[in-house]
Amino acid sequence: MDRRLIAAFERALGAEAVLTGIDDCLAYGYDNSSYRANPAMVLLPTRIEQVQAAVRLAREYKLPLTARGRGTNTTGASVPVERGIVIGFERMDAILDIAPGDRTARVQPGVLNGDLQAALAPHGLFWPPDPTSAPFCSIGGNIACNAGGPRAVKYGATRDNVLALKAVTGTGELVEFGARTSKNAAGFDLSRLLIGSEGGLALVVEATLKLSPKPAARAMLRALYRDMESAAEAVARLMAQPDTPSMLEFMDATALRLAREVGGADIPDAGALLMIEGDGDPAQLPELLRRLAGFAQGDGCLDITIPGSEAEQAQLMAARKALSPALRSLASGKINEDVVVPVSKVPALVRFVEALACESGLTIVSFGHIGNGNVHVNVMYDKADAGQTATAEACAGKLFAEVLRLGGTLSGEHGIGLAKRPFMAQAFTPETLTMMRGIKQLFDPDGILNPCKTLPE
Amino acid sequence: MDRRLIAAFERALGAEAVLTGIDDCLAYGYDNSSYRANPAMVLLPTRIEQVQAAVRLAREYKLPLTARGRGTNTTGASVPVERGIVIGFERMDAILDIAPGDRTARVQPGVLNGDLQAALAPHGLFWPPDPTSAPFCSIGGNIACNAGGPRAVKYGATRDNVLALKAVTGTGELVEFGARTSKNAAGFDLSRLLIGSEGGLALVVEATLKLSPKPAARAMLRALYRDMESAAEAVARLMAQPDTPSMLEFMDATALRLAREVGGADIPDAGALLMIEGDGDPAQLPELLRRLAGFAQGDGCLDITIPGSEAEQAQLMAARKALSPALRSLASGKINEDVVVPVSKVPALVRFVEALACESGLTIVSFGHIGNGNVHVNVMYDKADAGQTATAEACAGKLFAEVLRLGGTLSGEHGIGLAKRPFMAQAFTPETLTMMRGIKQLFDPDGILNPCKTLPE
Ligand SMILES: Cc1cc2nc3c(=O)[nH]c(=O)nc-3n(C[C@H](O)[C@H](O)[C@H](O)COP(=O)(O)OP(=O)(O)OC[C@H]3O[C@@H](n4cnc5c(N)ncnc54)[C@H](O)[C@@H]3O)c2cc1C
Ligand SMILES: Cc1cc2nc3c(=O)[nH]c(=O)nc-3n(C[C@H](O)[C@H](O)[C@H](O)COP(=O)(O)OP(=O)(O)OC[C@H]3O[C@@H](n4cnc5c(N)ncnc54)[C@H](O)[C@@H]3O)c2cc1C
Repeated sequence: MDRRLIAAFERALGAEAVLTGIDDCLAYGYDNSSYRANPAMVLLPTRIEQVQAAVRLAREYKLPLTARGRGTNTTGASVPVERGIVIGFERMDAILDIAPGDRTARVQPGVLNGDLQAALAPHGLFWPPDPTSAPFCSIGGNIACNAGGPRAVKYGATRDNVLALKAVTGTGELVEFGARTSKNAAGFDLSRLLIGSEGGLALVVEATLKLSPKPAARAMLRALYRDMESAAEAVARLMAQPDTPSMLEFMDATALRLAREVGGADIPDAGALLMIEGDGDPAQLPELLRRLAGFAQGDGCLDITIPGSEAEQAQLMAARKALSPALRSLASGKINEDVVVPVSKVPALVRFVEALACESGLTIVSFGHIGNGNVHVNVMYDKADAGQTATAEACAGKLFAEVLRLGGTLSGEHGIGLAKRPFMAQAFTPETLTMMRGIKQLFDPDGILNPCKTLPE
Repeated sequence: MDRRLIAAFERALGAEAVLTGIDDCLAYGYDNSSYRANPAMVLLPTRIEQVQAAVRLAREYKLPLTARGRGTNTTGASVPVERGIVIGFERMDAILDIAPGDRTARVQPGVLNGDLQAALAPHGLFWPPDPTSAPFCSIGGNIACNAGGPRAVKYGATRDNVLALKAVTGTGELVEFGARTSKNAAGFDLSRLLIGSEGGLALVVEATLKLSPKPAARAMLRALYRDMESAAEAVARLMAQPDTPSMLEFMDATALRLAREVGGADIPDAGALLMIEGDGDPAQLPELLRRLAGFAQGDGCLDITIPGSEAEQAQLMAARKALSPALRSLASGKINEDVVVPVSKVPALVRFVEALACESGLTIVSFGHIGNGNVHVNVMYDKADAGQTATAEACAGKLFAEVLRLGGTLSGEHGIGLAKRPFMAQAFTPETLTMMRGIKQLFDPDGILNPCKTLPE
């Protein structure tokens, strides 16, 4: 990068906030996807004014600027444009304020999800978004991806748990959206629009989060079913009664078989498995689990196990724990999609995936957050085999088409990034995409913020 | 209105969808505010294509077009421009689909909130937004106002309970935002942006709503406190534990005094009152109320009554019931604001309001949804007295300034409309307002949709 350009950024942000060494920059060029690119410069601001100055300069020189939390996303969303600029928020990591009586916390974007949870625990509160990556992903990244996790079924994902945002637009303006109260009917709500926008509209520099009281205890039961249909009927029963499970996960027959045969989990053979968690007062938990078990019971239910002790509880988790290593040992390549369909359509989707596995000759494993209809579909293939790789990619395309046909959406929590961009034109009408492009243009008239992501070309 | 213009609308929508008689139009010129204006034409479409045709024609002739549900809003939001056009959604009132297993309902905008609730009840489900006006307000109006009610403290307001929208923009394009699933991380979420936009961005023609399981039973307890501070501390305790009350309402000392002295309610003297409702399994309700009572107890708590029977329950509601008629008998004029402050700031706000009452010589009564910090402030004055009227209006201005100073927002559920427009420039920074104007311009480039509302001049 031009020496004078670097000097301009150093003047505006301070030299300590600007990295340009190839080695320093390298680690900011990839994320948990297979994409990578080398940024020419990495900016690490500590103050909002530096973020504004960075955007203004990038705009002046028409340089692409990609926001980065901790680079844990799986879609290439934080991979920069080759020789572009990364703006990393790791140094803006202060928890500014926790107001237990208001059930809110105000944070800088670089705070790690796990660090926030630790700070909230003494107040008996938590912030619901619970990605598995919580210990090493940032709140800013959670917001930009609309991250969620298994407990979203009861507590919602990020978009349901943010009240207000301060952000810097593509022109360097500082804007404030939403309100720091749990109710707000004043003006256009632009905060929810930024959530899930993958750093393409504005850079989040502060967030007011909506907190929930942490349940005193949790416990899980395991139910086995003859087939996906009967498991899905149990899910419908569980979701139609007021004690919403705090987690409602499933595994299809292939996942179960893998966990047993490859992962060595001690678990009977079945067509589908549900893990059903309840939370609340420890004294009432046994009664709650019995109630949940009552709804899980029904035609096609083969077995329900309510663990009595923590050791038994851990034993039940074995299937899920065994699955990940089993998958890894199975094939070198994995396309992992987190599609969503209406809950009632999950059996149809699983049937479709089974047929796709037959037809393609690949192993495809489905599991995930069934209470939200959010299914992780894992297409396993041999990376060294070009034919298999192409087949796996074709499977992903067919999967998306079916998901959309079933009234679903491309992603439940991982987002679009680079990976799913080509499918956006199938998911949205041209009129709707035009509107999204208009929004992008409004926030970022020169298209410098995370270009080539989210919206299709 | 020009005969040829009328003919053009009749050709495009069909004559039966077009009213132009003065008498026919009259009832579409007012709402529950003090504003009114006479529309020159009222359109009552039954199909989406008619809505698109109406917008295209209005745009061609640059005629202002104001959406109308049932005209129950309190801010003038559905009052048309004088001699402009009203587009009423009362004939698009079909419930298109209820999917209990998915916890969703798909509806046309003209469905009444109460009718939807009745249709959901047999499925054991409800749609959380619960304005007092439920029997006679429309889902479209709820969406456009981000309506809420007392149960928002546990279940959220409209913005928290809508998944997807179909809408017609100011250029007549049909757009589809959001997804019909409870999780979605694909593209920019424009559905939440439309919620609360008061008909100024697009006309909602279909909505997919997020449903909740209806609790089997509810019960309420009443707690009296020495002062607002001790009541607010009880609220902080109640909100920091996992059994979120399904309703958490308060009355200040003036409201209580009125309910007793003017309304004749049988209730001891106190500095503040809380009504605390729990919901759930009928068998567990007594235990839940005991737990809630435990958190309500504390320094400054004078009395807690847990009703045993339904008759006692009704008796406890007497105070709230007595309040409305008492207010009406007090003065001919009432400015009713529904401001919101962080919950912990409610005592400061109530103190401020008491001082304002002293200073202005007017009676000011505060009560409302304290669990959300949403306070209904009622400034009572004599309409016939110009001096009092001016004083009351000045009080509203001072109130808003204080609310904003306390980190709050102008409205929790009623919205901005015409009434609060002048205060928007105090509530938002110029940069934020510029962004909101940009959004308006993007959706409605000719400014024909509900002009002169929401955003300041
Ligand atoms: C092991 C593992 C498990 C995971 N499990 C889950 C899971 O259960 N659920 C789930 O939802 N996700 C999961 N993820 C994905 C990922 O952790 C989340 O998407 C997370 O939110 C990304 O946060 P991050 O800080 O790493 O952001 P990054 O990956 O650095 O960035 C993600 C996106 O956010 C943008 N961004 C970052 N900060 C800002 C900011 N301040 N302003 C504007 N834009 C910004 C970036 O430009 C990019 O578009 C998992 C990932 C891993 C590696
Ligand atoms: C007695 C009474 C009690 C009330 N209690 C509450 C309460 O507890 N909580 C609360 O939140 N509100 C309350 N309200 C206010 C009011 O009922 C709500 O705001 C309601 O949502 C308005 O619905 P409506 O169908 O009457 O809409 P209208 O008043 O007709 O319109 C309201 C706004 O919505 C727009 N609009 C209507 N339909 C559409 C559409 N299809 N597309 C785009 N824009 C549209 C209009 O242009 C207008 O801006 C109360 C009102 C009354 C009279």
